[in-house]
Amino acid sequence: VYGAGKDVGQAVAIVAALRAAHPDRAALVTRAAPELVDALRGAYPDALAEAGCVAVGPLPDPRGTVCVVAAGTSDGPVAAEAAFTARVSGASVTRVTDVGVAGIHRLLASKETLDTADCLVVVAGMDGALPSAVGGLTGVPLVAVPTSVGYGASFGGVAALLTMLNSCAPGVVVVNIDNGFGAGLFAARVARRTSR
Amino acid sequence: VYGAGKDVGQAVAIVAALRAAHPDRAALVTRAAPELVDALRGAYPDALAEAGCVAVGPLPDPRGTVCVVAAGTSDGPVAAEAAFTARVSGASVTRVTDVGVAGIHRLLASKETLDTADCLVVVAGMDGALPSAVGGLTGVPLVAVPTSVGYGASFGGVAALLTMLNSCAPGVVVVNIDNGFGAGLFAARVARRTSR
Amino acid sequence: VYGAGKDVGQAVAIVAALRAAHPDRAALVTRAAPELVDALRGAYPDALAEAGCVAVGPLPDPRGTVCVVAAGTSDGPVAAEAAFTARVSGASVTRVTDVGVAGIHRLLASKETLDTADCLVVVAGMDGALPSAVGGLTGVPLVAVPTSVGYGASFGGVAALLTMLNSCAPGVVVVNIDNGFGAGLFAARVARRTSR
Amino acid sequence: VYGAGKDVGQAVAIVAALRAAHPDRAALVTRAAPELVDALRGAYPDALAEAGCVAVGPLPDPRGTVCVVAAGTSDGPVAAEAAFTARVSGASVTRVTDVGVAGIHRLLASKETLDTADCLVVVAGMDGALPSAVGGLTGVPLVAVPTSVGYGASFGGVAALLTMLNSCAPGVVVVNIDNGFGAGLFAARVARRTSR
Amino acid sequence: VYGAGKDVGQAVAIVAALRAAHPDRAALVTRAAPELVDALRGAYPDALAEAGCVAVGPLPDPRGTVCVVAAGTSDGPVAAEAAFTARVSGASVTRVTDVGVAGIHRLLASKETLDTADCLVVVAGMDGALPSAVGGLTGVPLVAVPTSVGYGASFGGVAALLTMLNSCAPGVVVVNIDNGFGAGLFAARVARRTSR
Amino acid sequence: VYGAGKDVGQAVAIVAALRAAHPDRAALVTRAAPELVDALRGAYPDALAEAGCVAVGPLPDPRGTVCVVAAGTSDGPVAAEAAFTARVSGASVTRVTDVGVAGIHRLLASKETLDTADCLVVVAGMDGALPSAVGGLTGVPLVAVPTSVGYGASFGGVAALLTMLNSCAPGVVVVNIDNGFGAGLFAARVARRTSR
Amino acid sequence: VYGAGKDVGQAVAIVAALRAAHPDRAALVTRAAPELVDALRGAYPDALAEAGCVAVGPLPDPRGTVCVVAAGTSDGPVAAEAAFTARVSGASVTRVTDVGVAGIHRLLASKETLDTADCLVVVAGMDGALPSAVGGLTGVPLVAVPTSVGYGASFGGVAALLTMLNSCAPGVVVVNIDNGFGAGLFAARVARRTSR
Amino acid sequence: VYGAGKDVGQAVAIVAALRAAHPDRAALVTRAAPELVDALRGAYPDALAEAGCVAVGPLPDPRGTVCVVAAGTSDGPVAAEAAFTARVSGASVTRVTDVGVAGIHRLLASKETLDTADCLVVVAGMDGALPSAVGGLTGVPLVAVPTSVGYGASFGGVAALLTMLNSCAPGVVVVNIDNGFGAGLFAARVARRTSR
Repeated sequence: VYGAGKDVGQAVAIVAALRAAHPDRAALVTRAAPELVDALRGAYPDALAEAGCVAVGPLPDPRGTVCVVAAGTSDGPVAAEAAFTARVSGASVTRVTDVGVAGIHRLLASKETLDTADCLVVVAGMDGALPSAVGGLTGVPLVAVPTSVGYGASFGGVAALLTMLNSCAPGVVVVNIDNGFGAGLFAARVARRTSR
Repeated sequence: VYGAGKDVGQAVAIVAALRAAHPDRAALVTRAAPELVDALRGAYPDALAEAGCVAVGPLPDPRGTVCVVAAGTSDGPVAAEAAFTARVSGASVTRVTDVGVAGIHRLLASKETLDTADCLVVVAGMDGALPSAVGGLTGVPLVAVPTSVGYGASFGGVAALLTMLNSCAPGVVVVNIDNGFGAGLFAARVARRTSR
Repeated sequence: VYGAGKDVGQAVAIVAALRAAHPDRAALVTRAAPELVDALRGAYPDALAEAGCVAVGPLPDPRGTVCVVAAGTSDGPVAAEAAFTARVSGASVTRVTDVGVAGIHRLLASKETLDTADCLVVVAGMDGALPSAVGGLTGVPLVAVPTSVGYGASFGGVAALLTMLNSCAPGVVVVNIDNGFGAGLFAARVARRTSR
Repeated sequence: VYGAGKDVGQAVAIVAALRAAHPDRAALVTRAAPELVDALRGAYPDALAEAGCVAVGPLPDPRGTVCVVAAGTSDGPVAAEAAFTARVSGASVTRVTDVGVAGIHRLLASKETLDTADCLVVVAGMDGALPSAVGGLTGVPLVAVPTSVGYGASFGGVAALLTMLNSCAPGVVVVNIDNGFGAGLFAARVARRTSR
Repeated sequence: VYGAGKDVGQAVAIVAALRAAHPDRAALVTRAAPELVDALRGAYPDALAEAGCVAVGPLPDPRGTVCVVAAGTSDGPVAAEAAFTARVSGASVTRVTDVGVAGIHRLLASKETLDTADCLVVVAGMDGALPSAVGGLTGVPLVAVPTSVGYGASFGGVAALLTMLNSCAPGVVVVNIDNGFGAGLFAARVARRTSR
Repeated sequence: VYGAGKDVGQAVAIVAALRAAHPDRAALVTRAAPELVDALRGAYPDALAEAGCVAVGPLPDPRGTVCVVAAGTSDGPVAAEAAFTARVSGASVTRVTDVGVAGIHRLLASKETLDTADCLVVVAGMDGALPSAVGGLTGVPLVAVPTSVGYGASFGGVAALLTMLNSCAPGVVVVNIDNGFGAGLFAARVARRTSR
Repeated sequence: VYGAGKDVGQAVAIVAALRAAHPDRAALVTRAAPELVDALRGAYPDALAEAGCVAVGPLPDPRGTVCVVAAGTSDGPVAAEAAFTARVSGASVTRVTDVGVAGIHRLLASKETLDTADCLVVVAGMDGALPSAVGGLTGVPLVAVPTSVGYGASFGGVAALLTMLNSCAPGVVVVNIDNGFGAGLFAARVARRTSR
Repeated sequence: VYGAGKDVGQAVAIVAALRAAHPDRAALVTRAAPELVDALRGAYPDALAEAGCVAVGPLPDPRGTVCVVAAGTSDGPVAAEAAFTARVSGASVTRVTDVGVAGIHRLLASKETLDTADCLVVVAGMDGALPSAVGGLTGVPLVAVPTSVGYGASFGGVAALLTMLNSCAPGVVVVNIDNGFGAGLFAARVARRTSR
């Protein structure tokens, strides 16, 4: 359920319908405003919430590992959405934060964490160069997420999106700007298959 | 080795160097002009060649299955590049051809082939709508490849690229326009991990 | 009368002038803010209002049928504007809602409704793929309406607009982003001619 | 059959297959190079050919009238494609040529021809203003076709496309740049329904 | 003095400096917010103000005539800025309002007013087609002003700008979007020279 | 007559028709290929030809002066088209060549030539900055012509076009990229009125 | 530290950490909101603040001179950011303000100030033409900064950015729109090296 | 002298004029076609030529060092143009080739070469990520050059240009796409000042 643009009543009703139809799995709401988070937590006391995402209902046992890598603190919310979605979609999640192409040594220090994941989600705004560097360090499947962080000729994330589509590292795939949800879901699907 | 923009001598020399450095795995050339294909076949009689791609050296045993889906005959060369790359990168490959959103029944008839793959590569030009339809039919990880097929406001594949980035089917990831190589490599990486 | 950007006084005066000049047919206001809707209903108690549209005066007897198809709930306001306009412009209107390319079976179930219309209006945001699928199912004239629903690289509806202009289904025509009015008017013109 | 990008052998084979599958209706090839036109005429002596389009097989009896309006002589090929397609798709066709917004009196002199059509196809490049003027003169359903005629900031037809999408005349619908085929097919569908 | 983005104190100080430096001619402020208009009127009781423009000081005797033509009521503020600027810059001004390409007869009725001007300023948003029609009716020098009126694929006036740059009427020149000031100044320069 | 895209026969026929219809004034062909220039000179021995433009028939007596200013030698053909058109349209023409913003002293040395013209045409590619500098030196009406000279992010003249539309010199108007014809015609209309 | 998008607590904490890690050099915050400026001044009474920038800690002894040139008052904040950054980064700073291409004499009067600098930062919005003029006057290394000042087809600074990238003056380099920080830092690096 | 678009005679004449006017320094021709290179070598036997650049006349004694870094072999011609220009403009030149973000270890191995330069020129196409990585390794002034190498959504170098403008490494400046000349000239100016 994409929470943005839906009012609290609409969103709560959709969650209730999903819970009734699929009691065995969690309903996931993303881009939820604080009031919606509160309403869902009020209705479902054991709901999990983080970074504007809320999961209501039982989570699947995790299979496989998704590692979410983020360049800067501004990219944090999108990375958190990806991580939360991956967990709700049934994968274990590890995080690597505050690494960047302009500080390459910290990235090199994380190589083992990267190599032991089953799928990577790499989140970056501004120049969007991080996936190229990560993709050069490891052969783990890598999903790049451009964020709208930046100003001027970043055009709300378009610059980072183009960088990633043109990555000189082979085998990088891309999702829409700020689409942490899509990246997390895709990565979890890959990770869960890995350990079948 | 990206063959476009390299002359035959350059490309043959790079292949020879790669063969020497890595005798246990194949060197892959993409976007090879006919003269380059001929030169490589002359130098390496057991080279495999298809759709402007040439593989020189032993292929890995296939693990896992990549299914390459293509909308129209014009998308054929990109789909063939993806399929060839996936095979050279170590996956088995199945093909579904000539299905499209505007002829949805033929797509529905292919559902079992789609469901039994470990990763899908869906190639489409013009409106780029096919990945949305395929992604709605199956939960297998799906890599969408926009092609430059079209005219007018297709802008050399940009229209299809945007369609795919905005796909209403969850969990669709995208590569650059006409980048069959990138999609095939990524899909093979996913497929090989699946069956580990 | 395009209500957006006009204040209540201006809009009410234009409607009064239209009513005086053409007492035999309804004046139509679109994109009316709630205060304008209230003002018109106050002045014309039998005015019809829905989705920011208000019709003042006698509606023509309906001739022919326009079917308005919408992909998601977010596309609802534009679809409602199209349907209201088509009815005020003299056609009967049927609706198909909440169908999408990513859930193709629900669309297939609506085939008879589609086939019995004289003109279709298909409304979709995000990837804008729905008109291609509908156009593949039926030969009824089809007007596609892209909506500004989406985020990131949807560019306020441009992605959906390009998808529709490049539709692989033959005979799809397109109107401006969010232009439910234009689509509804055109479709009613076609439908009324059909049954002449 | 879209002839551009297919070689003569491919195209002739597709036509043969279509003729075999649907002997009762004509196969239509558009954007055919002269060699392809010759090959089809050689194989099918009674084939009709005009403006890079070839029709092979029996044409339907015409029902309803499509009027194709073109601004300048440079827009002629696209207008001819639209007219040929409309005729092959089963409508009678009338033509108005060499009228333009900058010479409005010639357009006014054609009003009766416009009013007696069942659907209009209006073709224009450069500023793309003609559909607005025609749409202000008549209430007949109007399909606008931008052409790639122009230079500089016409961007290969994008300027005309945007003009038409933003037409101040209500009820104008648009197809892709240079897409005479799509406009002709759509208009014939409307015209044939009109006279049912 | 471009008033937008300057606070009242800044703008008043600049006007005072201009008045001191050039007591023989008026200082012109455009895009003035209501508070700035009030402040200038308070400081200079005989200041002229209209449409967010304020002129402080003696106006030149008018020489020559500028005719400002506007398509719709939404284009009114830009047309008023052009007219006010032309008058302050030393030309007489006539106005033609509420004419459009989609209602061509009202435009034809204004032909004499157009022909007797020394320079035309034609203001239009949406499809921006009006200058082409006016330019086809008269050989008077014509400055086209695109406005940001429109929605969707009008892109804040870019569609109208492109239409005007590609006008099929010869001898049309263009200024920036919403730049009534520039058009009015240029037209007054032309008109004043005419009657020298 | 816009010569590009017309074959020699078509163009010669149009010129003959124009000569017959208007024997008292010259027919002007622009963007004529060398073969067309030769054909016209063969048919009309006293035709004038320069820079791909050909004038056939009697020129009007010149009234007023147009000064054509060009930044670099690459801008020469467009400047020549503007100058030729202005002369054929009835103005005297002066030229200032090889001045640029990056060599401002040569521009300053031409100030008197600029000031004595009735209308300026300023032609520039690359950064398109010259009209701003010229417009700051003189109050003569100024028509700016962007050219497609440049590479990389000049986007075929779009960079220069945008520069000119945003000129910080007041009263600069702009025509389409490479449109020397439109600028010359407009400037001649202004110049001829000046000396009435 | 880029202050925009960080709350006061985050930003103050980062500054404290930087001060602790690097007590010998100043921490620089740019794009600080007034509350953040106040908070930093409260915590560090000898902090320097200007134009939304705050420097906390000892400044390096200046070496070399950066001259910051600005076209209009609207470009002031970006120019001030560049000047402040250059000073904090260890260069002396001179300023030239309110010069422009449209008033070229004031620029010429500043030539000596330009020539005696070690690196220039030239800030301009709207047409972005100033760097071309400055670059033609002097051979000092020149960094151009486009600003988002403008309207209509200035596209938030893109027009100025393109002008600068296409500058006809050789040896002009460019930074992102409004990026006074990057230009000031780069220029200081050049200036400090100059006097080594 | 920019050789592209000039014929051999024009270019040779300009060089002769420059040699006569400035006998003490070299004339530099860039983007020279092979025939032009041959003509210049024929006329000036001691001319230096490389990568489509020719220098005629005495080179200055080198002062300071420019290091030109290139990502891939396809970027070679632009890197060679930058290096040649820097040398002709009076700097010593070092080269680092075939390093990339996706192979970060080779870049790290070049750190000392980078650190000992006075100015860096970093050339990259495709994702344009290399300047960010180099800028993170060293504080030497860095000029980034995007190249038109790439395909699909690289848009002829625009993707790399945007990446570089948005670099997350501070103090990166950018030149136009493929503008090795501008980068080399600027870098030489910086380097020569360094060692004064």
